[in-house]
Amino acid sequence: MSNFKLSGIFPPVTTPFNESGDVDYAALSSNIARYNEDGLAGYVALGSNGEVVHLSTEERTRVIETIKRGAASEHTIIAGVNELSTRSAIEAARAAADSGANAALVVTPYYYKASMTQEAFVRHFTEVADKSPLPVLIYNVPQNTGVVIESATIAKLAAHQNIIGVKDSAGNMGAISETLRRSPASFQVMVGNGGILFPSLMMGATGAVLAIACAAPRACVELFLAVKAGDHQRGRELQNRIAPLSHIVTAGLGVPGLKAAMEMLGLVGGPPRAPLAAVSSSDRERIRAVIRETGLFPEIE
Amino acid sequence: MSNFKLSGIFPPVTTPFNESGDVDYAALSSNIARYNEDGLAGYVALGSNGEVVHLSTEERTRVIETIKRGAASEHTIIAGVNELSTRSAIEAARAAADSGANAALVVTPYYYKASMTQEAFVRHFTEVADKSPLPVLIYNVPQNTGVVIESATIAKLAAHQNIIGVKDSAGNMGAISETLRRSPASFQVMVGNGGILFPSLMMGATGAVLAIACAAPRACVELFLAVKAGDHQRGRELQNRIAPLSHIVTAGLGVPGLKAAMEMLGLVGGPPRAPLAAVSSSDRERIRAVIRETGLFPEIE
Amino acid sequence: MSNFKLSGIFPPVTTPFNESGDVDYAALSSNIARYNEDGLAGYVALGSNGEVVHLSTEERTRVIETIKRGAASEHTIIAGVNELSTRSAIEAARAAADSGANAALVVTPYYYKASMTQEAFVRHFTEVADKSPLPVLIYNVPQNTGVVIESATIAKLAAHQNIIGVKDSAGNMGAISETLRRSPASFQVMVGNGGILFPSLMMGATGAVLAIACAAPRACVELFLAVKAGDHQRGRELQNRIAPLSHIVTAGLGVPGLKAAMEMLGLVGGPPRAPLAAVSSSDRERIRAVIRETGLFPEIE
Amino acid sequence: MSNFKLSGIFPPVTTPFNESGDVDYAALSSNIARYNEDGLAGYVALGSNGEVVHLSTEERTRVIETIKRGAASEHTIIAGVNELSTRSAIEAARAAADSGANAALVVTPYYYKASMTQEAFVRHFTEVADKSPLPVLIYNVPQNTGVVIESATIAKLAAHQNIIGVKDSAGNMGAISETLRRSPASFQVMVGNGGILFPSLMMGATGAVLAIACAAPRACVELFLAVKAGDHQRGRELQNRIAPLSHIVTAGLGVPGLKAAMEMLGLVGGPPRAPLAAVSSSDRERIRAVIRETGLFPEIE
Repeated sequence: MSNFKLSGIFPPVTTPFNESGDVDYAALSSNIARYNEDGLAGYVALGSNGEVVHLSTEERTRVIETIKRGAASEHTIIAGVNELSTRSAIEAARAAADSGANAALVVTPYYYKASMTQEAFVRHFTEVADKSPLPVLIYNVPQNTGVVIESATIAKLAAHQNIIGVKDSAGNMGAISETLRRSPASFQVMVGNGGILFPSLMMGATGAVLAIACAAPRACVELFLAVKAGDHQRGRELQNRIAPLSHIVTAGLGVPGLKAAMEMLGLVGGPPRAPLAAVSSSDRERIRAVIRETGLFPEIE
Repeated sequence: MSNFKLSGIFPPVTTPFNESGDVDYAALSSNIARYNEDGLAGYVALGSNGEVVHLSTEERTRVIETIKRGAASEHTIIAGVNELSTRSAIEAARAAADSGANAALVVTPYYYKASMTQEAFVRHFTEVADKSPLPVLIYNVPQNTGVVIESATIAKLAAHQNIIGVKDSAGNMGAISETLRRSPASFQVMVGNGGILFPSLMMGATGAVLAIACAAPRACVELFLAVKAGDHQRGRELQNRIAPLSHIVTAGLGVPGLKAAMEMLGLVGGPPRAPLAAVSSSDRERIRAVIRETGLFPEIE
Repeated sequence: MSNFKLSGIFPPVTTPFNESGDVDYAALSSNIARYNEDGLAGYVALGSNGEVVHLSTEERTRVIETIKRGAASEHTIIAGVNELSTRSAIEAARAAADSGANAALVVTPYYYKASMTQEAFVRHFTEVADKSPLPVLIYNVPQNTGVVIESATIAKLAAHQNIIGVKDSAGNMGAISETLRRSPASFQVMVGNGGILFPSLMMGATGAVLAIACAAPRACVELFLAVKAGDHQRGRELQNRIAPLSHIVTAGLGVPGLKAAMEMLGLVGGPPRAPLAAVSSSDRERIRAVIRETGLFPEIE
Repeated sequence: MSNFKLSGIFPPVTTPFNESGDVDYAALSSNIARYNEDGLAGYVALGSNGEVVHLSTEERTRVIETIKRGAASEHTIIAGVNELSTRSAIEAARAAADSGANAALVVTPYYYKASMTQEAFVRHFTEVADKSPLPVLIYNVPQNTGVVIESATIAKLAAHQNIIGVKDSAGNMGAISETLRRSPASFQVMVGNGGILFPSLMMGATGAVLAIACAAPRACVELFLAVKAGDHQRGRELQNRIAPLSHIVTAGLGVPGLKAAMEMLGLVGGPPRAPLAAVSSSDRERIRAVIRETGLFPEIE
């Protein structure tokens, strides 16, 4: 797995829809072309921000293929696997491999919450990793799932040769630190929360998968490079710039907010699929104000 | 819709799997044949207890068809629609109609929790009800979804001519009472929690969809009939008998526990699909003890 | 303990404050004089609605004494004990006995939430009951405490000869039913939630301690008597009348809302102590509308 | 307030009790004498770890006086104010001033959770700060209180001239960063969670109040000095050493665990007051193993 460039910044690419609600693959390609200029390590297809749970099986395949085709050869393509049974997670990982993905980002199952013990997670990820043709990243996102995989469980799963890392979006800095401390150095800990990017990198996180990187990829890459270069002053300053924008397009307004911010910054956003709804015009103004506040986009007045 | 016999008890039929993990349709048919003797009002296919989230689209179709074929002509068949986008919920309702279902039990969408406002629920259910060929029941099950649709929202949706009721599994007696109070008399309020069956019926609930009715259908039907007949003493006594069993096969051990209890009572249970796991032998003994404690099954020693 | 009239309705009496924020004992007496006409079983002093946590030790003593002096001889006086250590709970129970209370309503300790296991509750209530000169009622109110004492724990504590019952304000009908089922018949289960009064009485609850009984004591007493008389139709109808008022003065607007409702209904309300604040004038109008909606107070136009 | 040395590490001093459950002031003095060698910035009396909620008013006074008397002249003494009404919080702040404290650490009120809006917090802290003779630190500790004061609210309160800072124990790195970003540079942000000490200091926190500093004060001080000196490698290494010990004596075993760890490390621990209970012998062994694992105490074998 030495060829994996998980070190760095990955945007969880949004899926554009046209006015009739169908996936706009051309728009997706044009976003990827823009991102290719930005020093990103790769792309996550079919993440939460990609509205994976709103896409059909066929659409999921085409989204991966479109991103793969648009990406540069050095980019790593990570495909989200958001399935509720072990059996369908394995199928989705196989389909992702067939579509050209390089790794699978497999969410913790989350429907039968009372039964989703840490033992259930161990069983699920072990079986998926045994049978997946792609290396597996564990995906922890309690904001959406309502369940948490603990650091001790992740550390146990890190011993599996086909489980290469975790994307942790919970925003729990103590837990990310504990995962880093308890896992082998080769285990890839990716932070999934723009509000704690700088401190996570300071604690040793390998990289990040961030909603905010869909709207402001360069600022995230610069922050990453500043930390790598030991310029902690600069890292902290950039963290303070991206934090409010990160907050409003995740905890605040979610995917619709992220898509609105992307539009303001020259990318294709577009409407989300229902039950999500486009942001109101007043929320759009709030986003614009926050973008200005970051000081990162002098072109936005 | 006057032909709907939603008044009464509906089991949310479990889906049996064979040892290789495939759906055992013959076993499903044999369970339905047994249930046909028990005075039930109909069946819910593809509910949470039916492991709908573990089934493929094709399996979902065949499960509905199998139950429909096995049911008596007077039985109402309600099909669960457990989808995360409005678009796919409409598709699933259409497919359920094609498979012979009489009504669709549509879960609140639950992935983007922070965006799942009451307004989002209104939009979702209105659009689904507009386009569904089947009358719609709202499904509230926060134990699994992590979101709650409020009584005021349900009451607002009750004005839609294609939204005929709600199945409320939250176990919140105050909320069920408020829904009953705020909705028109024709709106069908079904309780989905065996621990509050008797008090819900006393407050005016039309009927019930209960996991425990998969294992102990006759006791549930007897309780229902006792309340209808004004025999409140008997209703309360039966409530006290079914409550501990209801608790252990829902909040306690979940679907695997329910399947184990069904086996002890002469039905086909079988293993759940992963990430759920069969109950341990010690849990099996706990279930057996609770079955004995109910005093409802003298044949179980 | 045969002389305890826990069967019936108890208001958790509010504590009036004058404009300078001191306890207005005369106003308290006048409220009690009004309540004495209403068929109540007794009074709870120093409950959550009595703002016990806002009162000094000396004020607590005088509040109990004032209520005791104003009550009729047949009334039972229950004193709230809201302390975070076992040691101080015992002291408070002793002080309550000295002030003339007949029973102590002892809240689950709630500060060190992670340590408040069911075992901790058993230790706490056992030691308090061992040393309290007054019989003890367990008080479960997770809305305020953030902790829950389970039915199994309550049932275990019910074996202690000085623990005579529970006031359960959680609003969890299933849990109240389980407590009733698992406890001896002599154990007094008092519901503390106006939204589930009728169903709780139908399941066998002995009586109730209800915020709404501070504003609408007669309706609560009538409901209680209707159930005793087997007039379930009337019980349910009254439940539907009190429910919205109960909701707005508890879950909705809390103690300030309850005090505002009391004022509209001819009792002394007055401002709460900070950090609580008097309700806004628009909230006051909402309360008035709900009072009208109940149809119980033709004098309110 | 320029003489405040809030920059640095403060232990929230535990309160030792003797076998009869009374406060052991001599033991408290001996702990302070030990701590005086460790480079700490001062002491917090009457914090959560000091079991403030288990102490009488008189005991609270003597605890502050004892710590004040034992501390070196350059030490800042911060007194916890854990009261549920605004009125009693003001009284406690006045009493703390009389006992020699230099600042008051005032917890968010937490009983009437549904009424504890951000506006209620603004009113409470404003009135307390207006009337407190001591400068006020806001105390956020949702693990114990079940309520959260938000960064935006803290930033608003930071404009009050007598509110000098916050101790945030929630462990939410994103929120601490947001508080730092939105508050004036002079506002003192103290982290209250040992699991995120290093990243909080990297983001600009002034100092820390940490349970773990009661057991391992020198390691915390060294970490603080390493960050001040720009030795981030050393800071991270120390973070990884203290984290597991911090976890087991806070989220894991709480105050009883902290007291047990202190005993193993040559300080006076002793039993907590009920309803807290001394740790079991097996938990004691777990703590000892974690102490060894830190590598910070070669004398512990």
